[in-house]
Amino acid sequence: MLIKNGTVVTGSDTFAGDVLIENGVITRIGVNLTADGVQVVDASGKLVLPGAVDVHTHFDLDVGIATAVDDFYTGTVAAACGGTTTIVDHMAFGPAGCNLGHQVARYHELAGGKAVIDYGFHGVIQHVNDDILAEMEPLVGEGITSYKLYMTYGHKLEDADILRVMARIKELGLIVSAHPENDGTIAYFKGVFHKAGLFAPEYHAKSRPFHCESEAVNRLLLFSEMLGDVPLYVVHLSNSLGLEYCKQARQRGLRRVFVETCPQYLFLNEELYTREDGLKYIMSPPLRDKSHSDALWRGIELGDVQTIGTDHCPFNFATDKQRGAADFAMCPNGAPGVEMRLPLMYSEGVAAGRISVNLLVSLCATNPAKLFGLYPRKGAIAPGSDGDVVILNPNARRTVSKKDMHENVDYSPYEGFELAGRIDAVVSRGELIVKDNIFVGEKGRGKFMRRSKPITQI
Amino acid sequence: MLIKNGTVVTGSDTFAGDVLIENGVITRIGVNLTADGVQVVDASGKLVLPGAVDVHTHFDLDVGIATAVDDFYTGTVAAACGGTTTIVDHMAFGPAGCNLGHQVARYHELAGGKAVIDYGFHGVIQHVNDDILAEMEPLVGEGITSYKLYMTYGHKLEDADILRVMARIKELGLIVSAHPENDGTIAYFKGVFHKAGLFAPEYHAKSRPFHCESEAVNRLLLFSEMLGDVPLYVVHLSNSLGLEYCKQARQRGLRRVFVETCPQYLFLNEELYTREDGLKYIMSPPLRDKSHSDALWRGIELGDVQTIGTDHCPFNFATDKQRGAADFAMCPNGAPGVEMRLPLMYSEGVAAGRISVNLLVSLCATNPAKLFGLYPRKGAIAPGSDGDVVILNPNARRTVSKKDMHENVDYSPYEGFELAGRIDAVVSRGELIVKDNIFVGEKGRGKFMRRSKPITQI
Amino acid sequence: MLIKNGTVVTGSDTFAGDVLIENGVITRIGVNLTADGVQVVDASGKLVLPGAVDVHTHFDLDVGIATAVDDFYTGTVAAACGGTTTIVDHMAFGPAGCNLGHQVARYHELAGGKAVIDYGFHGVIQHVNDDILAEMEPLVGEGITSYKLYMTYGHKLEDADILRVMARIKELGLIVSAHPENDGTIAYFKGVFHKAGLFAPEYHAKSRPFHCESEAVNRLLLFSEMLGDVPLYVVHLSNSLGLEYCKQARQRGLRRVFVETCPQYLFLNEELYTREDGLKYIMSPPLRDKSHSDALWRGIELGDVQTIGTDHCPFNFATDKQRGAADFAMCPNGAPGVEMRLPLMYSEGVAAGRISVNLLVSLCATNPAKLFGLYPRKGAIAPGSDGDVVILNPNARRTVSKKDMHENVDYSPYEGFELAGRIDAVVSRGELIVKDNIFVGEKGRGKFMRRSKPITQI
Amino acid sequence: MLIKNGTVVTGSDTFAGDVLIENGVITRIGVNLTADGVQVVDASGKLVLPGAVDVHTHFDLDVGIATAVDDFYTGTVAAACGGTTTIVDHMAFGPAGCNLGHQVARYHELAGGKAVIDYGFHGVIQHVNDDILAEMEPLVGEGITSYKLYMTYGHKLEDADILRVMARIKELGLIVSAHPENDGTIAYFKGVFHKAGLFAPEYHAKSRPFHCESEAVNRLLLFSEMLGDVPLYVVHLSNSLGLEYCKQARQRGLRRVFVETCPQYLFLNEELYTREDGLKYIMSPPLRDKSHSDALWRGIELGDVQTIGTDHCPFNFATDKQRGAADFAMCPNGAPGVEMRLPLMYSEGVAAGRISVNLLVSLCATNPAKLFGLYPRKGAIAPGSDGDVVILNPNARRTVSKKDMHENVDYSPYEGFELAGRIDAVVSRGELIVKDNIFVGEKGRGKFMRRSKPITQI
Repeated sequence: MLIKNGTVVTGSDTFAGDVLIENGVITRIGVNLTADGVQVVDASGKLVLPGAVDVHTHFDLDVGIATAVDDFYTGTVAAACGGTTTIVDHMAFGPAGCNLGHQVARYHELAGGKAVIDYGFHGVIQHVNDDILAEMEPLVGEGITSYKLYMTYGHKLEDADILRVMARIKELGLIVSAHPENDGTIAYFKGVFHKAGLFAPEYHAKSRPFHCESEAVNRLLLFSEMLGDVPLYVVHLSNSLGLEYCKQARQRGLRRVFVETCPQYLFLNEELYTREDGLKYIMSPPLRDKSHSDALWRGIELGDVQTIGTDHCPFNFATDKQRGAADFAMCPNGAPGVEMRLPLMYSEGVAAGRISVNLLVSLCATNPAKLFGLYPRKGAIAPGSDGDVVILNPNARRTVSKKDMHENVDYSPYEGFELAGRIDAVVSRGELIVKDNIFVGEKGRGKFMRRSKPITQI
Repeated sequence: MLIKNGTVVTGSDTFAGDVLIENGVITRIGVNLTADGVQVVDASGKLVLPGAVDVHTHFDLDVGIATAVDDFYTGTVAAACGGTTTIVDHMAFGPAGCNLGHQVARYHELAGGKAVIDYGFHGVIQHVNDDILAEMEPLVGEGITSYKLYMTYGHKLEDADILRVMARIKELGLIVSAHPENDGTIAYFKGVFHKAGLFAPEYHAKSRPFHCESEAVNRLLLFSEMLGDVPLYVVHLSNSLGLEYCKQARQRGLRRVFVETCPQYLFLNEELYTREDGLKYIMSPPLRDKSHSDALWRGIELGDVQTIGTDHCPFNFATDKQRGAADFAMCPNGAPGVEMRLPLMYSEGVAAGRISVNLLVSLCATNPAKLFGLYPRKGAIAPGSDGDVVILNPNARRTVSKKDMHENVDYSPYEGFELAGRIDAVVSRGELIVKDNIFVGEKGRGKFMRRSKPITQI
Repeated sequence: MLIKNGTVVTGSDTFAGDVLIENGVITRIGVNLTADGVQVVDASGKLVLPGAVDVHTHFDLDVGIATAVDDFYTGTVAAACGGTTTIVDHMAFGPAGCNLGHQVARYHELAGGKAVIDYGFHGVIQHVNDDILAEMEPLVGEGITSYKLYMTYGHKLEDADILRVMARIKELGLIVSAHPENDGTIAYFKGVFHKAGLFAPEYHAKSRPFHCESEAVNRLLLFSEMLGDVPLYVVHLSNSLGLEYCKQARQRGLRRVFVETCPQYLFLNEELYTREDGLKYIMSPPLRDKSHSDALWRGIELGDVQTIGTDHCPFNFATDKQRGAADFAMCPNGAPGVEMRLPLMYSEGVAAGRISVNLLVSLCATNPAKLFGLYPRKGAIAPGSDGDVVILNPNARRTVSKKDMHENVDYSPYEGFELAGRIDAVVSRGELIVKDNIFVGEKGRGKFMRRSKPITQI
Repeated sequence: MLIKNGTVVTGSDTFAGDVLIENGVITRIGVNLTADGVQVVDASGKLVLPGAVDVHTHFDLDVGIATAVDDFYTGTVAAACGGTTTIVDHMAFGPAGCNLGHQVARYHELAGGKAVIDYGFHGVIQHVNDDILAEMEPLVGEGITSYKLYMTYGHKLEDADILRVMARIKELGLIVSAHPENDGTIAYFKGVFHKAGLFAPEYHAKSRPFHCESEAVNRLLLFSEMLGDVPLYVVHLSNSLGLEYCKQARQRGLRRVFVETCPQYLFLNEELYTREDGLKYIMSPPLRDKSHSDALWRGIELGDVQTIGTDHCPFNFATDKQRGAADFAMCPNGAPGVEMRLPLMYSEGVAAGRISVNLLVSLCATNPAKLFGLYPRKGAIAPGSDGDVVILNPNARRTVSKKDMHENVDYSPYEGFELAGRIDAVVSRGELIVKDNIFVGEKGRGKFMRRSKPITQI
């Protein structure tokens, strides 16, 4: 495929040029390129971006009371239509006591033959012992070079175990992420609210105040610091104080702490919980007030936030979410987002003048690819990289509407948003897979990415 | 008693004057006072300070493997000789499952008939349930208006329980203090060091790095903030980052967080652990490097630290401390300090020019008295206050030597320190109890202080 | 005079007691005091505070286009009725090239025989040369132990001259204050607004944005720091960024920087400029938005602000202020305030729960007295101090109304404010000078205070 | 020219590939490129970087008492040999009262026919009036899209004039830089030292303490903020406090403040002034203590510093610098640096592990090119960009020695430094101009760059 006359954008550069993809790999970037027998795509007046990388999805996630409604097929189709050409999924917990490989095998089953874009899995640590720590090493060879752990929920790790994991992560040159919320806080407030008969969605948010997240973030930062700068990836940061702690930790000397935030924390706020459809927004961490969104935007602009993920974890409002109608605590946590990340960030980030398009590429593609061992195959428009490309029309506009979307869920939190910019086409390994918002690729074409170790200097 | 011609010092004022004490209570302060039939003490050229208040002692503390060697007699004699006329003791844990009153009763037994200065007890919370929370209310009437809990050690509380206690503290208008160290960190590092065969005293410090304390301090601050400014007293702060967190929390809006540091963290540093007698300094939190001491001093000067306590908890070096000779983890934690607090702080604070003598009085007497419900009976030279007075000669000098001291322990961490200033006399309720470093009072003369609720605006 | 049964308040202590004043000096404080032949004042249920000290007035100030309408008689009567028993006046500039003594002599003429409370003068530096610097030394003996300089206005000093003054101040152990606004900024914006035909009062504020003040504050701080901690008193701070700079400078090591703010910056905000009577509020620095007031209050609570002054400089609205009707730049700068400082601060500080009454005393009496060499004669209720006392009824309320006030000006910026607390009586050197808001003393009874060198450790 | 098999590095990406340059412009980047009739350069095992851009040189600078010894020929040869393929020169002051075009014309004469790499000029503002402000607009068309002003030295601008310039800069979409030192401070300290007979080089540094620079930086930041985010480029930042102010300003909302530091402030410290050859290091701002260098490195790592410049301004030690032998104030200020910037930064930044090679490219090429209107012609390896390339051998080492250097000055401040990495070749517009440290291009081949307006979102 030859993409002609576009404005090519990388994490640092913007230039007029053509991109040639052969055998799924970018082979040339230049002016006035020609090639025989290849599909030619005219990108005049369009931006040509690296395919976006979303390292925070939860496809098929089984949370016990429900299972996320996007599987690796519908989820990756939605991702693709939103300009994302690679995802790294956060796996669900397996049966109690299972080894690390158990879920990896399980997820290969879930994704294989279904995913339409390339994918990887973060390992998940649900208990810690010598066997688990030992098993991390061979799994590196299988492409599992990052781990997730939880500070709340069923398989939360105690502090001493978190430290054991982090020390091992450092030893092996991997990267760890953690769901940062203070478990005791949530338990305490749930108890208080239940006792007081307060079950509405807003009490979900009130049972997880921002301090509860900040606390856990700070704990992780200090753990990393104590162990000598363990590569740490703070997922779905939703609050300003947690960001402030990250900045202070870097100023003190941490060089390998990275922050992800998600569109929901930039675009949605806590007053939504008091609306009739408040259940739609039950996710953890919860939405905050606008001061936090503003601080996160400022963090993006200043380079204090390195990536945008989605934490895509959809449940149908009409059914699954209604489990929480009588008690917020019974509502499955999560919301869709994999399809709208790039469109939202382009519109409100770039078109609105907050960030350069290069920074958009860094946040949504290059940085996550580097941090999670996908680079340079993913995250770049460069010779040798996979031919994953998004062609975006900066002059078109779009109104977000569930009816135009591909996520297998009955609502979008962004319904009615007016966006500047529209994705014209998405290319994965040189193959046109999305054209005018229609997925035109084949089910199961996605490949598992045997990820390398992280690049932590970005 | 009439104290004539001294320079009287309060938390804010300094003036030449006389102080008349009648029936144990200060009745007049003035110039050229006279009174019939009272003992006259000439304080010309001397400072006349309120008797100091030490709200952090551990007399008779039973830590399982040993018992602190100062009981309420020897301990209060040492306190008195050091210018301290009131102590509030941090009680030991009682038997598993005991109610709050159990230890109060036990401590009345320990202190009654022994203490030579007035005393109170902080309640100790070793487990949490509805009965315990309910019991806090009646105990207010018995003078128990502050509680201590532990984030590490045998009876550490989990976060949800800490929150329950803090909510109750706020409800009752009391104040809580907590031993702030991250329990998991200590467990982790102890495991690592033991596995590596590292048992020397320095590994005590390394198993409790400053981040471990900072983390716990920050957690408490955020808990207080979530619950709406619960009065919080951070004991024995030893590190700069924890102080920074306290300052930030105040800047964010907390009005009732108070910081105590202790002389050991101002005057002693971690290199002592590598000396032959390193076991002497095994205490928790451990000594830090000098940058932390400097930051704490700066915090004192700037008003970020409100009190100086001692955490007095002495064990004999020749015997008790030797339990740790083969393994730091077997060494009883603690060091003596009750006798040298005021002399050290006067010398290195006031005489060295770091702080005003008024600030010394605030730190060592007025502030702790207010925060722990002893004010205005204690902590002030004012009409109606108890006649507790220290007469200090600012022009004398003293070399610290165990042989001159009254603590019932075989060493002083401050041996050989050259100090400016010397205490000439100490008066408790109008009675001269120390003269020229000799205790001249009676055993058991101290009275239990039924403490009021804290004054948290100081 | 014997003041009986009040609640006596000092900068650190609060106690029930009596105060005896003999020959104008406090001789005894105690319980159940008696004395023959003295006036007895019953203060039951009342607070007995040290007479307040206002170190920032501009009586009789000649600003060229107008003269402040309170002279040393009306101004001190108003001060007295507001609980202020000592003022230190900031003198006007003298004729170009005059020596330091010129204005001192002039002000003795202005104040002598008129002032009804005790008073002092800050020296004013309007140009710098060796003679001026030399003259500072003998003037110490005449009680001029502080100097004011200006960074804008007619006799603004250039930076090199400010440094020469500051070095000299340090050498002599004095303290310097400076009007901190960036002169170039004001000139620039005035030019812009005049060119654009914008002459309304709000452009006064816009021509002096808060950055203009912050800049100058920071410059002074760095000058002090370069010269090794020159005692520096930042007058009338009105903005949060300037306060932040002061805090940072202290954290870096400055021990002798002190901050004054004024009630107008705590209680009034910039939207007043767009009211019909906006001219009333033309003062420099101008009023700011509420975020600055909030930050200043937080600074007061946290101890980052040391004093409250007034910058009392009244002009009649009906006449003087109207000079600015067609052009803000022609309006004399300043507003009244000397009478309402203590009532406002008691009501909104103490009664509203923001600060303790002890802190009120520190801010309004003890601290300014110490910093400007008036202590311990002024600023304390202590034996040997002058018998300057305010008796305040904490349970009464008052509505501010110009008609009840004594300032010789046709408006009060606080008209209609509802205040908790009311001053019952004011005593100066043992003489009742105000009773139920009526001045009952004699004209000219005030004495010049030969001030000592500052106490800079407070 | 075809550069084969190198590791191509951009501001965000690193990939194995070939670069084809035709007619001086990069036309293709790819794998396995071939081309007929072009020079082929084998870059196996080498890094292929964009030619570096140094926007801070002072060639031929006439400072009155001396003229910088590198002219546009020797200076650009040295630059080229150090991997720099574009410079933007800071012009000297012209005759008093001259218009802006005067110095532009003068510099065209100085550079034309001499420069061997492409070059531009920053405009210099030495006085301000309406004519000067008006003249800025037509000069944009001549490629003058940035201005420099001075806060000290002969033609220092007063604050009101700085504001006028900044407002105009914003209006025209340009960018301003300013030499930030507080003029009064320097005057004051020079006076003090001269009076005290202190003339040694170390008093140069002491007469310009870091606060003096921080102050001016902060003043500029606040000026930019008051005027609504004027694009501001802080040149040659040498101190940590100034950096802190920049960070705070960004946090408050400034989006267009950029920081340049120079190798001398990263690698050299103030103790050099007390060496026998201390005069070599007389430059402004002066060298600081190591804590400042550390902070600047941290700022580079964290993205708080955007560019590395050199402030290249060499004077011979044997002659020019000796003018300062008897009095530091008589020594021409400045030092060489244009040749060693990239080698030093590669070695101590990249090879030492502090920064990624992508960040090196951003700092030394992409960012300055964007900020000063040279992008995308300069600062990128991208189709359409000029064929300016550095081929660097990361495995070679080099010892800095004056004898191997091309700067026309008799010393290098970096003599004896051991560096990792060595430049093999430098290409300018497709022409090999440096090979193995030998300049092989032609005198006068450099072209004037008619610079565009700055890109301020980088």
